[in-house]
Amino acid sequence: MTRPSEDDLIARYFAPLAISAGADGLNDDAAVVPPGEGDLVVTKDMVVAGVHFFPDDPPSSIVKKALRVNLSDLAAKGAKPAGFLLGLGLPPDWTEAFLEESARGLAQDIEVFDCPLLGGDTVKMPGPLTLSVTAFGYAPRIVRRRGARPGDIIAVTGTIGDGALGLAVRAAEREPAKAPAWVAGLDDRHRALLALRYMFPMPRVRAASAVAAFASASMDVSDGLAGDLAKLLKASGVGATAAIDDVPLSESARGALALDPSLIRTVLTGGDDYELLVTCPPDRFAAFASAVNAEGLDLTAIGRITAGEGLVISDRSGQAVDLGAGRFQHF
Amino acid sequence: MTRPSEDDLIARYFAPLAISAGADGLNDDAAVVPPGEGDLVVTKDMVVAGVHFFPDDPPSSIVKKALRVNLSDLAAKGAKPAGFLLGLGLPPDWTEAFLEESARGLAQDIEVFDCPLLGGDTVKMPGPLTLSVTAFGYAPRIVRRRGARPGDIIAVTGTIGDGALGLAVRAAEREPAKAPAWVAGLDDRHRALLALRYMFPMPRVRAASAVAAFASASMDVSDGLAGDLAKLLKASGVGATAAIDDVPLSESARGALALDPSLIRTVLTGGDDYELLVTCPPDRFAAFASAVNAEGLDLTAIGRITAGEGLVISDRSGQAVDLGAGRFQHF
Repeated sequence: MTRPSEDDLIARYFAPLAISAGADGLNDDAAVVPPGEGDLVVTKDMVVAGVHFFPDDPPSSIVKKALRVNLSDLAAKGAKPAGFLLGLGLPPDWTEAFLEESARGLAQDIEVFDCPLLGGDTVKMPGPLTLSVTAFGYAPRIVRRRGARPGDIIAVTGTIGDGALGLAVRAAEREPAKAPAWVAGLDDRHRALLALRYMFPMPRVRAASAVAAFASASMDVSDGLAGDLAKLLKASGVGATAAIDDVPLSESARGALALDPSLIRTVLTGGDDYELLVTCPPDRFAAFASAVNAEGLDLTAIGRITAGEGLVISDRSGQAVDLGAGRFQHF
Repeated sequence: MTRPSEDDLIARYFAPLAISAGADGLNDDAAVVPPGEGDLVVTKDMVVAGVHFFPDDPPSSIVKKALRVNLSDLAAKGAKPAGFLLGLGLPPDWTEAFLEESARGLAQDIEVFDCPLLGGDTVKMPGPLTLSVTAFGYAPRIVRRRGARPGDIIAVTGTIGDGALGLAVRAAEREPAKAPAWVAGLDDRHRALLALRYMFPMPRVRAASAVAAFASASMDVSDGLAGDLAKLLKASGVGATAAIDDVPLSESARGALALDPSLIRTVLTGGDDYELLVTCPPDRFAAFASAVNAEGLDLTAIGRITAGEGLVISDRSGQAVDLGAGRFQHF
């Protein structure tokens, strides 16, 4: 089988995506980041087949997820996208069909998120498909994890747990023999919605301006709400109380929980939400929520920052719940 | 064997390297690039064990090369380093000794090149060790490949061919049975010097200001002088003549060529030089060379840009030399 050279491959699939002047049509070894105002925020997340996604996930899911997890980090820091670099490690069995579908998917996200491809690198990978995205954005001021203060309200965008439940659905599709009972019990529509949330996470880019304007601390929820909140608390040197009943759930997640209440642990500690976890002084929360709402997203209060250390999560009866290690680790 | 978690590993080995305020001690998902003037130039090169380096190369060589090939791209664009992100895909057999040596090596380069670690990502890699560096720099204006004009002088920094010959020396060390005769014939010092040039390429960061001030076109020589010059010509829509005898060679390379004159092909088409290939109008060349000299580097004219297409390389007798495909392809 004859395959295109690296130059041909770039010219055919990626140059059409490089519409920013700074990319110079991908005819160079470097790019210029479009100028903007405020802090230039950069983030880099690598995703590897078999670790961060299933090797047989649709190519558009793989490549969009690689970009979107980075845009999620930018949004959490209050930054709007300005462009990205794509590092692509292609395993021996790569196909042109894969690249074609990937390029088509990327083209959609470049438009949706107004985030041009600026450059990158394509290499042979004698191992699993690997994508390394570096994304750039501008924030009026970067919002760190470490700004939470006692009394601040803790809130999340969207709904929590769909990504982790979607991962379980996707795993069950691949190995039906190992599928847990709740997956079979759930109706088709909810199963499909959860799998889509896992395969196509939606970075909350539209909330970035509100985060920059109102959040005292912020991060995205990628490794599970409980564990990520614990990280934010540690960085800020504070504690928190949160109520399970206040955590916003989708109809699909509620359906799954009705079939198996023990899934609450998956919901709170599973990964792949890519919602924003923010804190804000109580007197500014209403304005924050309304700014987020204006972008078509929900912002739901789930707890309060306390002085001291540790996270106490309580159930409906007010009892503290022990989530154990409580953190999904990709690494 | 108990291994540190990703957070522990970052805290132990990489946080001490993140001395820039923008890195926030690596306690966040994103960084702020230190502000600067001019074009913000970004570049990203991935390197993979078994493709771009030998898996048993010293850890400091691997990690320094991953950074330096990116700094070489910045220098070629006229940009001085402002910081970098490190993506690290660790294979199942990673060791703490590897990370310790890598961190020590990186610390040296961070100081030498004044290029702080800003952030990155560490992931499990069920495959070969993979490093993906994104480097940032500022140039008064980015110098592209496409600016060469007929009449311009073509020049290179340093010496050409040492990297490719060093790769052969390194390969011979690993498989002595397959070593070519010239490797055994070369004296120990030259063998060692060539291997060092391969393992520790020296990005011409100090020439960046002169490139920005004088070069009409520029790129680094990473895939072989002949092939990279052909790329520059194609991007600029011009042709060139060059003389083999004018290509600057190190004493070590001359020694190797004396033992095997056919190595001239390796010298001109091998990769891993990481010298700068520049063009400049003839009336500005003396000032360009003197600005590069002031930084302790040589700049040697090797040819002229011509109208039309194609690269004609001539030997001592003025005969055109056919280098064949003439390009080393990592991909």
